[in-house]
Amino acid sequence: MHARDLVAEFPTVTADTPAVEAARLLAEQRLPGLIVVDGGGRPLSVLPGTQVLRLAVPRYCQDDPALARVVDEGHADRFVRALGGRTVRECLPDQPRELPITDPGATALEIAALMARTRSPLVAVVEADGRLLGAVTLQDLLGRALEA
Amino acid sequence: MHARDLVAEFPTVTADTPAVEAARLLAEQRLPGLIVVDGGGRPLSVLPGTQVLRLAVPRYCQDDPALARVVDEGHADRFVRALGGRTVRECLPDQPRELPITDPGATALEIAALMARTRSPLVAVVEADGRLLGAVTLQDLLGRALEA
Repeated sequence: MHARDLVAEFPTVTADTPAVEAARLLAEQRLPGLIVVDGGGRPLSVLPGTQVLRLAVPRYCQDDPALARVVDEGHADRFVRALGGRTVRECLPDQPRELPITDPGATALEIAALMARTRSPLVAVVEADGRLLGAVTLQDLLGRALEA
Repeated sequence: MHARDLVAEFPTVTADTPAVEAARLLAEQRLPGLIVVDGGGRPLSVLPGTQVLRLAVPRYCQDDPALARVVDEGHADRFVRALGGRTVRECLPDQPRELPITDPGATALEIAALMARTRSPLVAVVEADGRLLGAVTLQDLLGRALEA
């Protein structure tokens, strides 16, 4: 059982996708994260949903729970409007870190190790030329491994 | 819009639940994580799926991707068997850290800030007596906030 046997199609966004559209994709398709590809369809990053959320939540609310509480309910309900005009590019992390991206030949254990190490419930699978083949989710991986 | 309006029923496990059963629950119900409750139904912890996975992946494979690759395919396919005999207790983090747990009166923005801060796509909602009311997922929160 290799990544090529576990992979499934997965929607993608680009760095220029509006952040609000990315949020809608996460919500409507109940995705665990987003795969950001470049113009050639090669993955640039894999973003957990919480990273997109960070863009919508003012920094002072992230740092101090008490400050989030004093924002009135009307404004609190509409917090995602803060995403307006922003793009996925602004969600990308600054520091280069290991990305949850692997090749079609990776074994189930390799994918699990990659998810555990990067704490990502989503791994992108890319061909040798860097093009995205699809993704393996933690739920699919566990499901298949429990049958093995 | 408060946590009480966004909350939905969510399956729970206890610290004594076998880890393999927890993995099955994650896979079959496609959960973003698990809520661990005590004997009185009070949340002890909220575990991301990757934390459960860490228990099944040998430490040397988590640290070194090259070592995960040399494990033969048959063993790699059956990595989840390493969960056998272990319980959810062993998945719980050692260090006390802020848990993604809130009260029914939290606003949408507070929940979003909590998810962003704890990097958890799942927030448990508890009554004043500590009992679990249910959970809010990142997908549900974004979906409702996008309608607001």
